[in-house]
Amino acid sequence: MDAINSTIAMTEAERIDRMRLIRSDNVGPRTFRSLVDHFGSARAALERLPDLARRGGAARSGRICSADEAKAELAVSRTLGVSWLAPDEDGYPSRLATLDDAPPLLAVRGDAAALMRPMIGIVGSRNASGAGLKFAGQLARELGEAGFVIISGLARGVDQAAHRASVASGTVAVLAGGHDCIYPPEHKDLLAAILDQQGGAISEMPLGHEPRARDFPRRNRLISGASLGVVVVEATQRSGSLITARMAAEQGREVFAVPGSPLDPRAAGTNDLIKQGATLVTEAADIINAVASIMERPVMHPAGEPDSEPFESDPQAYDRDQISGLLGSAPISIDDLVRMSGASPAIVRTILLELELAGRLERHGGGLVSLI
Amino acid sequence: MDAINSTIAMTEAERIDRMRLIRSDNVGPRTFRSLVDHFGSARAALERLPDLARRGGAARSGRICSADEAKAELAVSRTLGVSWLAPDEDGYPSRLATLDDAPPLLAVRGDAAALMRPMIGIVGSRNASGAGLKFAGQLARELGEAGFVIISGLARGVDQAAHRASVASGTVAVLAGGHDCIYPPEHKDLLAAILDQQGGAISEMPLGHEPRARDFPRRNRLISGASLGVVVVEATQRSGSLITARMAAEQGREVFAVPGSPLDPRAAGTNDLIKQGATLVTEAADIINAVASIMERPVMHPAGEPDSEPFESDPQAYDRDQISGLLGSAPISIDDLVRMSGASPAIVRTILLELELAGRLERHGGGLVSLI
Repeated sequence: MDAINSTIAMTEAERIDRMRLIRSDNVGPRTFRSLVDHFGSARAALERLPDLARRGGAARSGRICSADEAKAELAVSRTLGVSWLAPDEDGYPSRLATLDDAPPLLAVRGDAAALMRPMIGIVGSRNASGAGLKFAGQLARELGEAGFVIISGLARGVDQAAHRASVASGTVAVLAGGHDCIYPPEHKDLLAAILDQQGGAISEMPLGHEPRARDFPRRNRLISGASLGVVVVEATQRSGSLITARMAAEQGREVFAVPGSPLDPRAAGTNDLIKQGATLVTEAADIINAVASIMERPVMHPAGEPDSEPFESDPQAYDRDQISGLLGSAPISIDDLVRMSGASPAIVRTILLELELAGRLERHGGGLVSLI
Repeated sequence: MDAINSTIAMTEAERIDRMRLIRSDNVGPRTFRSLVDHFGSARAALERLPDLARRGGAARSGRICSADEAKAELAVSRTLGVSWLAPDEDGYPSRLATLDDAPPLLAVRGDAAALMRPMIGIVGSRNASGAGLKFAGQLARELGEAGFVIISGLARGVDQAAHRASVASGTVAVLAGGHDCIYPPEHKDLLAAILDQQGGAISEMPLGHEPRARDFPRRNRLISGASLGVVVVEATQRSGSLITARMAAEQGREVFAVPGSPLDPRAAGTNDLIKQGATLVTEAADIINAVASIMERPVMHPAGEPDSEPFESDPQAYDRDQISGLLGSAPISIDDLVRMSGASPAIVRTILLELELAGRLERHGGGLVSLI
């Protein structure tokens, strides 16, 4: 990874601050952006974290990642050939950078040029049929020849078939754990081959993080987010690939699905996707034609629109009590909170941020929030 | 067949006249309707046929079916249990009657009530896979249980599987030849079982007519026309079932297709149909839901709209020469003929009818005509 010819130079100190902020308790990608937008820098946000969490009603102060810890992780990463990149740096997949929950620092290994090329996600059952594996490989090869990088999850089955068939043309593995915790372990050779031939691997997880079940859906949003579109090759009705497809749709990415016989349970999920509006795929041209018009448009960075809205630096205790009172375990929309409280949107946003940092707020899709 | 409790009583003499007119040279279902609409009855049209054909430039007078021939065919039909019904008579499938090329007399065997019930067409490859045959049967059984009559072509493969699975609930076979020329001959037993259990069989062909290749597409329009929608279960890219699907779409019927693996050539046609907008089917509910709203609407008889427009009883020789001159072997639209000739639509329609009866005009889809 030698993509340090960044368009916006970031000092090592800034990178350490970003690492500290995203590693601190109750700070996810969205909160990270709110904080940096509001306080102007990761450093300034770090200084305010304890106070905000306390105002949000944290029983005890959340853990803040120390500078030493962050420096140590960056140093070990360097020895593994892993760079931690911000969304505006070269080597950070350009479409992934447009997500409003894009990782504020992404751990990247491999070829920066490949990571910036247009990508198509190919996902599907770990327990795929012979036909499914064959078709995944065929599609990956043809899309690779057409200039697309294939992005997938390094899993058994469809992922593996798609990566293998596109090693020569360029493929990117998205990891659910840290770069030093490859899952499944028997795919270390495949990953080595990918990196050896101008491919790449990305993860948002710390080094040493062993992937758990709940990490896979989170990882899947990176596969879809980095892609122009995602192809689901085979999927049963409860397959994790359907989560990737749903995320792709929510992110405004194209969703493609490969049909199969109604009598084949491994086609139940993909047939359902087509019923719901996914594009039916029988050949690479179906995908290439569908994404052609998207590729002509510039990559849009809608990022920052909701979060760059103003915050209120010091809400009144009265507002804080009222909004906490309106919240419960049932999700409610932020718009409704503004309407019902009579407080300004800036005040509501600020109080929700405080509650979040205190570990008391959960954010759902569609602008809904609830107390934990 | 005992559906003689007709809503509009037709005398035996009228039925003989209709039989004579549709059996006469150059008279197809559309010309039949034009003639009856214009001259008020089949009898009046028969009297004018020689004159019209002569004016259209027929080298020799076309053959007109004699009353004796018509009587003989009706008599033999009766001995076989076959009734020849007009579109407004009980036992004539109600949706079929709405087509602008509905057979003016349809040869019907079996249960009049079944022939009037809502129908779903199931068609597909003669050379279907085991999975295709199984699924066709499953679908036919479930649709039968839901109250639909299954209509198909009595062919080998998917047709046979669909008929067999719906014998008990009611199924209708559409024949490409006459009722005494069953094809394939080994399906005579299947047809007997269908008729034995409140099913039916229909044909527009004369008794004694052995089906030829070109009769099958013509027959297929009856399958689709009588249906609320047509399901294509398996079809290669050049399958005749795709003609049925195209006709269904042209007739405003729903088109359903069963998906399959892109690696299975027997799914190539059905997958293509889905790409073109057909509804993907994995279970009977997909069909039942899609046709539910159509069934709530009354059956519309758009019949007669274009053909009930006025004709000109005696066009000038000048117009006749001019319009013949504008026609060639390349299809041209009737609208363009009206525009280019400056003649009234009634005159253009009349001259085209004359040319048709002279065997000199071919009608294409979309209001296009050419000289033969």
